[in-house]
Amino acid sequence: MTRTAGRHFLQIPGPTPVPDRVLRAMDCPVIDHRGPAFQVLGRRVLAGIKTVFQTETHAFIFPASGTGAWEAALCNTLSPGDTVLMYETGHFSNLWKTMAERLGLAVRFIETDWRSGIDASAIGAALADDKTHTIKAVCVVHNETSTGTTSSMSDVRKAIDAARHPALLMADCVSSLASIDYRHDEWGVDVAVASSQKGLMLPPGLAFNAVSDKAMAATKTARLPRSYWSWDDQAALNANGYFPYTPATPMLHGLAEAIDILHEEGFPSVFARHKRLAEATRRAVRGWGLEILCRDARFYSPVVTTVLMPGTRGGDAFRELVLERFDMSLGSGLSKLGDKVFRIGHIGDTNELTIVAALAGVEMGLALAGIPHKKGGVDAAMAYLAADAKVPEPQTMLA
Amino acid sequence: MTRTAGRHFLQIPGPTPVPDRVLRAMDCPVIDHRGPAFQVLGRRVLAGIKTVFQTETHAFIFPASGTGAWEAALCNTLSPGDTVLMYETGHFSNLWKTMAERLGLAVRFIETDWRSGIDASAIGAALADDKTHTIKAVCVVHNETSTGTTSSMSDVRKAIDAARHPALLMADCVSSLASIDYRHDEWGVDVAVASSQKGLMLPPGLAFNAVSDKAMAATKTARLPRSYWSWDDQAALNANGYFPYTPATPMLHGLAEAIDILHEEGFPSVFARHKRLAEATRRAVRGWGLEILCRDARFYSPVVTTVLMPGTRGGDAFRELVLERFDMSLGSGLSKLGDKVFRIGHIGDTNELTIVAALAGVEMGLALAGIPHKKGGVDAAMAYLAADAKVPEPQTMLA
Amino acid sequence: MTRTAGRHFLQIPGPTPVPDRVLRAMDCPVIDHRGPAFQVLGRRVLAGIKTVFQTETHAFIFPASGTGAWEAALCNTLSPGDTVLMYETGHFSNLWKTMAERLGLAVRFIETDWRSGIDASAIGAALADDKTHTIKAVCVVHNETSTGTTSSMSDVRKAIDAARHPALLMADCVSSLASIDYRHDEWGVDVAVASSQKGLMLPPGLAFNAVSDKAMAATKTARLPRSYWSWDDQAALNANGYFPYTPATPMLHGLAEAIDILHEEGFPSVFARHKRLAEATRRAVRGWGLEILCRDARFYSPVVTTVLMPGTRGGDAFRELVLERFDMSLGSGLSKLGDKVFRIGHIGDTNELTIVAALAGVEMGLALAGIPHKKGGVDAAMAYLAADAKVPEPQTMLA
Amino acid sequence: MTRTAGRHFLQIPGPTPVPDRVLRAMDCPVIDHRGPAFQVLGRRVLAGIKTVFQTETHAFIFPASGTGAWEAALCNTLSPGDTVLMYETGHFSNLWKTMAERLGLAVRFIETDWRSGIDASAIGAALADDKTHTIKAVCVVHNETSTGTTSSMSDVRKAIDAARHPALLMADCVSSLASIDYRHDEWGVDVAVASSQKGLMLPPGLAFNAVSDKAMAATKTARLPRSYWSWDDQAALNANGYFPYTPATPMLHGLAEAIDILHEEGFPSVFARHKRLAEATRRAVRGWGLEILCRDARFYSPVVTTVLMPGTRGGDAFRELVLERFDMSLGSGLSKLGDKVFRIGHIGDTNELTIVAALAGVEMGLALAGIPHKKGGVDAAMAYLAADAKVPEPQTMLA
Repeated sequence: MTRTAGRHFLQIPGPTPVPDRVLRAMDCPVIDHRGPAFQVLGRRVLAGIKTVFQTETHAFIFPASGTGAWEAALCNTLSPGDTVLMYETGHFSNLWKTMAERLGLAVRFIETDWRSGIDASAIGAALADDKTHTIKAVCVVHNETSTGTTSSMSDVRKAIDAARHPALLMADCVSSLASIDYRHDEWGVDVAVASSQKGLMLPPGLAFNAVSDKAMAATKTARLPRSYWSWDDQAALNANGYFPYTPATPMLHGLAEAIDILHEEGFPSVFARHKRLAEATRRAVRGWGLEILCRDARFYSPVVTTVLMPGTRGGDAFRELVLERFDMSLGSGLSKLGDKVFRIGHIGDTNELTIVAALAGVEMGLALAGIPHKKGGVDAAMAYLAADAKVPEPQTMLA
Repeated sequence: MTRTAGRHFLQIPGPTPVPDRVLRAMDCPVIDHRGPAFQVLGRRVLAGIKTVFQTETHAFIFPASGTGAWEAALCNTLSPGDTVLMYETGHFSNLWKTMAERLGLAVRFIETDWRSGIDASAIGAALADDKTHTIKAVCVVHNETSTGTTSSMSDVRKAIDAARHPALLMADCVSSLASIDYRHDEWGVDVAVASSQKGLMLPPGLAFNAVSDKAMAATKTARLPRSYWSWDDQAALNANGYFPYTPATPMLHGLAEAIDILHEEGFPSVFARHKRLAEATRRAVRGWGLEILCRDARFYSPVVTTVLMPGTRGGDAFRELVLERFDMSLGSGLSKLGDKVFRIGHIGDTNELTIVAALAGVEMGLALAGIPHKKGGVDAAMAYLAADAKVPEPQTMLA
Repeated sequence: MTRTAGRHFLQIPGPTPVPDRVLRAMDCPVIDHRGPAFQVLGRRVLAGIKTVFQTETHAFIFPASGTGAWEAALCNTLSPGDTVLMYETGHFSNLWKTMAERLGLAVRFIETDWRSGIDASAIGAALADDKTHTIKAVCVVHNETSTGTTSSMSDVRKAIDAARHPALLMADCVSSLASIDYRHDEWGVDVAVASSQKGLMLPPGLAFNAVSDKAMAATKTARLPRSYWSWDDQAALNANGYFPYTPATPMLHGLAEAIDILHEEGFPSVFARHKRLAEATRRAVRGWGLEILCRDARFYSPVVTTVLMPGTRGGDAFRELVLERFDMSLGSGLSKLGDKVFRIGHIGDTNELTIVAALAGVEMGLALAGIPHKKGGVDAAMAYLAADAKVPEPQTMLA
Repeated sequence: MTRTAGRHFLQIPGPTPVPDRVLRAMDCPVIDHRGPAFQVLGRRVLAGIKTVFQTETHAFIFPASGTGAWEAALCNTLSPGDTVLMYETGHFSNLWKTMAERLGLAVRFIETDWRSGIDASAIGAALADDKTHTIKAVCVVHNETSTGTTSSMSDVRKAIDAARHPALLMADCVSSLASIDYRHDEWGVDVAVASSQKGLMLPPGLAFNAVSDKAMAATKTARLPRSYWSWDDQAALNANGYFPYTPATPMLHGLAEAIDILHEEGFPSVFARHKRLAEATRRAVRGWGLEILCRDARFYSPVVTTVLMPGTRGGDAFRELVLERFDMSLGSGLSKLGDKVFRIGHIGDTNELTIVAALAGVEMGLALAGIPHKKGGVDAAMAYLAADAKVPEPQTMLA
């Protein structure tokens, strides 16, 4: 394959660019996962990941892709035939629904057109109707990576509470954790699902659950078969800093470093940075005269912007051209969005100049592809970023 | 923690030392797992791992610990309540049994004292008794890492065939693959279970299944719930070099490099090297007047030697002393073996001088601990290795 | 120091960004510099560096900064009191002059205002005047990094030949080699001076000389003291792939990789890429209404553009602001240029989007600093790059 | 080239094995050598290296091989025709002598048979004879790497003082610094010469001088031409943490890390560790019935042991066999020692088990080569190390 000079621009909404510090931390000899050096590492990451979830209860780390954490959330808390309420935000809510069905759960699904975030009142209504408390869990996606929408987990919690419904609240935080403010305890989420390759700035390979006491208690009665994903097994060994089976040691070294990096920048700065880069991106999209898929500004995602292709032009051909000419990967349209959109990731270890470069790649790509658009997207982004540029200050997390 | 000068000696039977070439291959920016560069990588490792299993049918790669591949083997092929025949070789056979039970399977278990390999005739007898073919699978461990025994998968196959029994044959190759000759197709194994951190010389983080056509066919009727571990999902995407969910890209880069390294040395050389280092280790153990746990020389493991502590001395205190004084990690006794043994790993990317160093660490540790033993273990190993030393020649694999 | 998220933009004209492949090649255990594995490496880089210089005569590699190669060029060929003719192109020609004087040479210096390249006719005239052939060497800078001018070495050669003067021609190629076409043999240069941290995409730490037979012959009579820099010592050991003193092994591993990368892209593509990015940069500068230091387009440098600060604004404060706000390093004004300019490097392992990002950083910095300028620099660069974008094709070098 | 499994054993007396921590510290993007981040690094290493030399005066860091630091020592302090007194300890003292002569100095040379350390009284006598103070400097080698002898720099100082002679004292500490106690200020050395690839555990590529005020004053009158090696240029820029020409940034990152590692272990522990491993090595040599080149135990080197080949057997063939069979590099005989010896390095980042492995490689190699020897060398080393094993305690340096 022909080498292209310079750095590849990885502007998909994850996996995200891995900081050199994290790569170096991972680039080390493997250690005995039953020895004292490992114990120090294990305790460090188990405590550290809780600070990222803003929880003081339970958090588990699996050697797995994030998809595994979905499965762990369901099989540790539910029994065959249980009903779960899910809300269609896009591709990933639908994948989780499919998984739930394959595991033998019944899914009540609130369908949408994928162009907005979660209407918590619809969840409230569904729960209010469920007088017999058939619904055992409400499963929602905090940031829907396919459409670029972020929903309020706090509003969903309030809707559940208002309905006085005992269902567990499960939140997919895969693309929000460590990029968008997420407060596990404060918002009363029971199970959070996350993975390493997004805001945590690691390669793929680790999956996470944050778990409330209520969800831990549910394991006592949950009858879905589970072994690899068992929280109880994890909890037993985690107590001493170890894991029930061989952990992915280099990823844990990387995780420890990534958590340090996040604390050095400070979560408020991290979250503000993502919002700033997202706003710059949206201004560029509007500058080009293109349409953002998310129709409602309240739900704009700080980590990814999904853009509708104008006219009948296909997103795949456009992305291929941009990859070939400018060595930049853009996100593709997923499932029903397919060729109709492309996605610009602005997540993880990134900064102003990188985002402007990405937007320039899009603007030049639009020109080269002969796609009707206005100039001025990059100019709009620069105008915003030059006005808004702040020197990030190190902060410790509030929680 | 005080730094100790020089290299740590990681003489546990896995995770094994990761070659620098593999670490460097992994130390790279993450790429778009849906882009063309990934496709090249995906196809390379999917084809490459088959050569390691010596199979031409199916092989799957999961972002998971090896434990996950056990679960995948069972849940893709079996239904709730199915009976499996398992053979007690040690700690790991017993863990697999526990998993099977937790997944809702019935286990017939051939119990042993952990001091030998598999007696295939016992399996044959059990199958011959099973006139109704209640047993759906025979699950055995190729190399039992806790006891240091290797069993003949070919003999097990013959016993199944002799009994004209349709049960699937499943082999745990976690600590044998790429260190001990394993011939998936030739030996008629239906499902092999493996992981990255042993003979493949990678860090932990990848799990593998090799799967026969017969086992693939079993997925059609198997009713254990499955989603993350679904072979069908893998197969559908693997056809084009991709994966159903975000793959652990750096591990795949490392895997590609590791497979290249194995082919450069040549499997016959790799297997012969492990046997040679194992024999040197056993000669040292005998030189010290200590007892090898495995009673029958036919079952000696090429990758790990489990040594009984003499008298009433505890293995854990001994290992701690060796770690503290000589910066070497030895394997601990697992479950019922506990404090009664220690294990010397001689697996993966290692060589003569490293093994002699490890044996010297044991010999000096025995002296420091005041454990009754004879001198001369290291001498015996050196005498053997000096006589037997061969310059390894590069070979391509036969299969 | 506060961590800044995302990648630093290193837009100085060297050291240049080191490709990950080169960093990984360097990240390896040190080997015995007198053993057979080293010999393979030594022969590879000694042959490889000749292809970069486009020479078939002699090339030497020193563990040193590029400054050392200046000293080597002089002390291997000249004697105390010898006269050299030097041409003022900027800061680096003046540093070389100072060195020559400190080594005991007499320098005739053709002075200029630093705003153009070399007028070869002035050299011709000086040599024509030198009837007694007092001048032993003509020392010129191929690409003057301080001012952003590139001069024709071929024209200088022709001027020397036209004057029928026997002086050696020495060319400083530090910032041109492997970025700007340089043909040692074809252009009749006697001694070339280069280093690792520019077009070769390595960290600083290696210095190079390419040497004609005529210059090698000059060592026989040259009486400047020399030991570390002795070409004869190098040549004697290089013949077998070794070096007269301990070589900087990891840098040589990196050099081998860097040369491979250059050949994979192909020198014509490499040179064209640098020209394209330089043109984009100059269009941006004109777009801002700022002035390029180099007054004559014939001498525009493909690797660095020196920009005059408008009015009385200082370049240093501007660069500090850009560093602080956008994590980008720009080149400073050197010696008499001081605060009056800043420099944009577009050299080495870089590409279109990175350059646009750099230009965006400058444009936003100008806005933030309140420096009078026109908008539209980035737009002008994008318009050029979108029109001119080419998929680089792999080519082997012509020479 | 056929890959050999496992780690190479690099048992030459330098370059020494580079710790993973140092390799990782070096494996980072290059930074602007004129920017604020560099300044932090520059100040850190310039201060740090003084603690290693145990000096509070001046220390300089050159991007060069150690050979360059010899040249810097001479050309900064001496004038053409000056006389220096040198003492023949072996290959490296002789190389330094050759260099001095090539630079135009007159050398008075105290010749020896290479089998002992420095007899300071001979130096005292020579100086006492030098009534006119023709001798400007006394140049000696602290640890002679070719022969395995360490001499007392303090004794040489006392001899100079006793003779009331004003000559500068220059010490080659290339293979002693950071492995053998070296006290620049306390012992009154004027110029120390060192490099990165020995006790400092870095790859080759940096050269060092520690310089007394008296030696700095000598630069005022010294007339040997110098530019690259000029201490004055270094001192001027070092004052602010910068360097007069592009520094080898990654090496400086590595240096900072290496100095941290040394302080973590503590110099007393570092020095004791080297002595312990050296004693184990010598016991092994005696165990084999072979002869150590150094005849006088007072001069035994803690970092390298030179062993005489018995009978007429050649050292080169023996080393080749050991390399081929056991993937271990031993040191060769240098210049007149040639084929008559081999050298075992026990320097830098190494430990007990690694040294035992190295000794085992020698013992097995002797057997395979059919070289007459006694068994028991490794046993003798193990007996010593098991008795003497100490857990190193972290200590801060006394100075």
